[in-house]
This record gives sequence, structure tokens and C-alpha cells, in this order.
Amino acid sequence: MDYRILQDLASKEGGKIVYLILDGLGGLRMGEARGTELQVARTPNLDKLVSQSVCGLLDPIWPGITPGSGPAHLAIFGYDPLEFVVGRGVLAALGVDFKLTEKDVAARVNFCTVGSDGKVADRRAGRIPTEENRRLCTKLRDGVSLPTEFFLEPVKEHRAVLVLRGEGLGGELADTDPQQEGFPPLEPRALDPQSRKTAEIVGDFLQQAKRILQDEPKANMLLLRGFARYNRFPTMEERYKLHSLAIANYPMYRGLARLVGMDVWPEVGDLKDEFRILAENFSQYDFFFVHIKKTDSLGEDGNFSAKVKAIEEVDKLIPQVLDLGPEVIVVTADHSTPSRLKSHSWHPVPVLLFSPNCRVDEVKSFDEISCIRGGLGRLPAVALITLALAHARRLKKYGA
Amino acid sequence: MDYRILQDLASKEGGKIVYLILDGLGGLRMGEARGTELQVARTPNLDKLVSQSVCGLLDPIWPGITPGSGPAHLAIFGYDPLEFVVGRGVLAALGVDFKLTEKDVAARVNFCTVGSDGKVADRRAGRIPTEENRRLCTKLRDGVSLPTEFFLEPVKEHRAVLVLRGEGLGGELADTDPQQEGFPPLEPRALDPQSRKTAEIVGDFLQQAKRILQDEPKANMLLLRGFARYNRFPTMEERYKLHSLAIANYPMYRGLARLVGMDVWPEVGDLKDEFRILAENFSQYDFFFVHIKKTDSLGEDGNFSAKVKAIEEVDKLIPQVLDLGPEVIVVTADHSTPSRLKSHSWHPVPVLLFSPNCRVDEVKSFDEISCIRGGLGRLPAVALITLALAHARRLKKYGA
Repeated sequence: MDYRILQDLASKEGGKIVYLILDGLGGLRMGEARGTELQVARTPNLDKLVSQSVCGLLDPIWPGITPGSGPAHLAIFGYDPLEFVVGRGVLAALGVDFKLTEKDVAARVNFCTVGSDGKVADRRAGRIPTEENRRLCTKLRDGVSLPTEFFLEPVKEHRAVLVLRGEGLGGELADTDPQQEGFPPLEPRALDPQSRKTAEIVGDFLQQAKRILQDEPKANMLLLRGFARYNRFPTMEERYKLHSLAIANYPMYRGLARLVGMDVWPEVGDLKDEFRILAENFSQYDFFFVHIKKTDSLGEDGNFSAKVKAIEEVDKLIPQVLDLGPEVIVVTADHSTPSRLKSHSWHPVPVLLFSPNCRVDEVKSFDEISCIRGGLGRLPAVALITLALAHARRLKKYGA
Repeated sequence: MDYRILQDLASKEGGKIVYLILDGLGGLRMGEARGTELQVARTPNLDKLVSQSVCGLLDPIWPGITPGSGPAHLAIFGYDPLEFVVGRGVLAALGVDFKLTEKDVAARVNFCTVGSDGKVADRRAGRIPTEENRRLCTKLRDGVSLPTEFFLEPVKEHRAVLVLRGEGLGGELADTDPQQEGFPPLEPRALDPQSRKTAEIVGDFLQQAKRILQDEPKANMLLLRGFARYNRFPTMEERYKLHSLAIANYPMYRGLARLVGMDVWPEVGDLKDEFRILAENFSQYDFFFVHIKKTDSLGEDGNFSAKVKAIEEVDKLIPQVLDLGPEVIVVTADHSTPSRLKSHSWHPVPVLLFSPNCRVDEVKSFDEISCIRGGLGRLPAVALITLALAHARRLKKYGA
């Protein structure tokens, strides 16, 4: 489906849409548990919501494909992740609130430790404190001189972002990270002719960086990966006529939201703050993306019972969203992160769409097993946005 | 899926297929009702059919997209409605049984009232009676002289259709309808170079029409919109080797059937006549499109209980179809028209495919809620034709 047809169908008027995205929500049964994390969690409010909703399962990318956070979020915002590709470097830059331009190539940076044999001894430089990272970024910014503008921004612990800005810089470069310790860092290498100039500048940068960092006890070198050029995507306002606000605790999700043109709430505290910010800004926007990170982090940790608790915490806040009276509430995930697998997985994610305009189905419990019997069936995640728009009465008829 | 591969797979031999299309069948629960229109209706014959069928839900266009009648019907005939686009003018011409040729450009016409200030005072000329419309069309046909052949056909009340016939006429013209009262009619304007000649002829037509209508009390001018060239689509015979008959009470559906090359039964009385005509012509065709309009009209009226009755009337006639012994009976809708919304909607439509060759599923009741648990799951409506062909044993194996 070519979503450009929505430009003719979407209306500026209509109800409000709230997306509650419980990152990595989808789970699996584990050990002695009676079901998945979501089945085990006590969720009286979600169960109540289900009785006025239509449910289903969503495939973030395609059945069997495990998505990263970038493509998984693009999909639920209606951007086909096989068409709208976001490089890792771009994602990292967006994640530190860096305002990318269309002249930029970004890469993820790891400070690392290289031994006297020239081989990587620690790919994460002993996870240096963020403070140390900041000092090193400043030192490199001051010390390095390049023929083109560049930015080096600390992220967290040993991670940073490098951005090169210039006309005609290609972004197709191989990683310099050898991925394993005991191997020397790789030379930057262009993967297409347009990226040769970028590779040269990166080589220059790394040589100077090596010299400047040589006396650092831990972080004496940089590894670069995920090089990518920034391409501007059409915004959700342009595609769907939705004025949108993102409320997210982690920079990367704010960056993803910025990529599709959402306004982004700058500072969020804990889960309760997210819901408070939603309430305070409710009159100002059409669409709200509320991102809840904990479900994913605890899944990645393999902490089944803590993930159950995280789900229960969200459940307690659901009435606050209902009280705002949105036309559409969507509760779903970007992807599954089963505690049993300690990683993202390919399993489809449960989705609940609450709206006075929905065709309520027979699903009684919001979970991965029940939802397939819901009225939505199994759908690609990119279809979620058209369903949300339709239920908010924001789409005109196609054809006569 | 590119349906051109069916040309190699489809066989001239095989069983007969009957499509019973209950227009706008899909509904929603409303008020005190215990379910949707289809759930509330007593349908013993459909329920019996279900026990020998495979069921599912169909998305006419895409989840969340509300279809017009044109695209919705094209989809169930297997014509991707995003690829096979029918202009509004063409649809209107089909709707009055006008036989379009590939030299034709058609537009929708509104008789309107223009005040002495030259501005549109009533876009519908007080909804003049159809009789008046007929008189005015004749008057204009007699009075206007154009360098090309033209046709002006009354539709209903203030609505008519204009068709220009000539070599090399483009159909990309802007509407002359200003859409709002208090503005003068717009000049015809070509949107591409191929349509300049058309715009000139239309301008000429409108000038003459203005003069001819100047003393009419209400309908003293015309507004044109939805200009479209007629493009011949490949027929169902060409695509599927199906010799097909359409039995429909309303001209627009006969027109849509003609668009995909079906033979069209010219005059139909009521519902019972439709089923009688089906029986009488059963030996002559491979495929039958029986269109039932009432379910849609009553949905548009918001008349829940009358829509329920309309469904029950159809149910009573089901045994007559069974008696004919077709290899495949499909009962479905082109789109949903819930009485609660009084309009077409985006909700998927229930489908039942009865055939001795189907894999009978667990669905016990033919309705919008149960069908999602059927063996077809949720499918795009364009997939219906290949399922029907397969169950009628009309498709050869793809590849070896």
C-alpha cells in the first residue's frame, strides 16, 4: 500500500489518538510461569479496556523477522521499514538530540582500549563513566582538525556519536569495529565510490584521535560503526495531517519520533511523569506517542517477574489515559522481547485498539495468545496507523 | 500479486461460481442491539451454509481505508483498486447504463442556480425533480452545437452526466464546481497538455448552456466535476477465463460489472427476480455476480432493524442458490455500511466460501465477529477471486 494516497484522504479534523508503546512487550512462557509475562501480569485496567476494543497481532516487519528498535517503531508509525531505512549512526545522533541536516553522515562511536600490540583489548574501554566520555569528546573536538565540519557528541558510558557535515559525503562505509577483541581496529573503507571522500576524512580523523588519546589509561582509541547518511523522511503531519507529540524517557525513541517530524518532550522523569505530560499537553496535539522502556530492558535482562511488575505499573496508569477521552487508544509494542530469550524476537506483538468506533470482538484478555482471535487478526504493523486514523474519523473515503 | 500469471493458470473448464454480494453488509453493534445487524438477523440458511464453508474477514482496500463502491467492487472481482482507478465521471456514466467507448471523457454534472451577481446561489438548484432534469437535458442536447459528439444524460434530481466523444481527448480537467456557494463557477482548466482541447470544448459547451438556460427559474447553469477518461480494463474472461453474468438492480453496479467485461442482465425487478434470473441463466455462464443493494441503502439510512430484515430476506433465498448446485458460493460484501455510522466504513467484511472443496472451519455463525476465527483469517479482498477460482477447480498448478 502506497501511503501517499493518505495525503488526499487524511483530514486535519478528527479525534485524538494515543499510542501507548510498551517496548518489547511481547513475551514467551518461561520456566514454571503459567504463561507469558503479559498473561501472568494482573492487568485489570487493560482487561476492562479489552472489553471495548478490537484486538490482534502485529508483525513489525514480516513474520519471522526480528526487528531493531528503529524499524519496529517506524512500522507502527506507518513507515514501511523496508522502504524507510535508518542507519544506526543516524539513530544514535537522533538519540542525543542532535539536529541532523541533509549534509550529514553519522556513525556510532565506542571508546575502546587498544593494547601495545595494536589489538583491541576492551571494545568498551571498561565502560568509562559518562563524565570521562564528555571530557574525551571535548579534547578530541579541540584537538582534531578536518577539512570538513564535524561533531563528536557523548552518549553514555563508552558510547558517542560522530557526525561529518559536508557537500557530497556518501555514507556507505564499513565499520572500523572488528566486533571481537584480540583484533586490531579496521581501516575505514568506502563501500561505494560516493563514500571515498568520507572514508578519507574518517581515516584522517582516526589518525589524529589515536595521537590525542594515546596517553589515556583506558579510552585510548575509537571504534566506528553504523555509518549512515541522514535522509529527511516525510513527517506525520505531511503524511497523515497529525500534529504529534512524543513522550519518551530514552533519547533514541525521542530521536525516532523526531525523524518522523513529531514534537518531542525534552525531559521526562519516570513513568508517572510521562502520563502527567500526556495529560498536560492533551489539548495541544492530535497524536501522542508514549514510550515505555522498562518492559524491554527487563526482558533483555531475562527478568520475567520484574517485566511482569513493569506491565502491572503501566496498567495502573491506564485510567488516567481514559479520563482524557481520546477517540483512539492503542496499546501495543514495537516488538517482542521475551525474558526467556533475553533479546528482541520475531514473535508478533499483541495490539489493542480502543475506540467508540471499533467493532468489539470476543477477546477477554489482552495477551499474545488471545489476541489472534480478535477482530484485527494478524496484520503487518504498518497497517496500525491507518486503523488508528480511521477509528479517529480522520480518513475520507477512497473513490466513489 | 500480479494477476497476469492467472492467464497461464486459469482454465476454461471447471465449476460454476456464484458471488452473492450484500452491499454494505458489514455492521456494528448499535444502541440496545445484542450485536451487529448480521448477528441479530435470523439466518438459518446462512448458518447451515457456514457449516460447510470456510470463513474469514476481507479488507476491501487496506485496513482502515473506507472504500467507495467502485474500488470495493473491483477488489472482490480481483482488480487491485489502487491500480485500476475509475474516475468519478466514468462511474457516473456507468451508473446510467451509458455504454462508454475508449474515445470518451465523462464528467458529473450538477444543475445549479447562479444569481444575478454571477455567483452560485444553490449548488443543487433546489434539487429540481428528475422530470425537470430530463427536460433540461433534452433542451441542452437540442440547443448546443459542439465540434465533437457529446451526450448529456439525466441521473436523478439535479444530477446528470456529460460525455464528450472524440479522438485524442484528455480527461485531466479541474472541476468547474467551486464547492462552495457564493463563488462564481470556475472556468474549465486542463491539468495536462493532452486535455487542453477538452477544456476548450467544455468551455464552449458551458457558454452555450448558460445562454440556453438563462431564463430557467432554478437550474440556470451547470457545474462539472470528476472529469475522467474511460480506460478499458482487461475483462474477467481475459484474466480468469470466466464467462460472467451480472444481475444487479442498480445501474451503477451494472456499470461496474460492464467495466470488467461481464454480460449484464438489463432489467431486474426485486430480490426474488434476481434469484430467478440467476436460475434461468445458470447453464449459460461460469460466474455470477448477484448484487443486493438494500443492505447498503438501509445502513446509510441508519435503519438497523430494516437492515436486519433485508439480511433475513436474502437468507430465505439461499436454498434456491444451493439447489442450482454451483461448485462455489461466496457470500460477502463490497464494504461495511454500519447503521450506526450511516455511511460506508473501513471495517472489514465477513466472507463465507461454500464449496465441496473447501476446508471447513469451526465458525458456526456467519457474522463479523465469528468470521475472524475462520479458516481464511483476514485477507485483502483482491484475494477472493483466486480462492473462488481454486475452489471451482479452475486454476492449474504454479510451477512444477
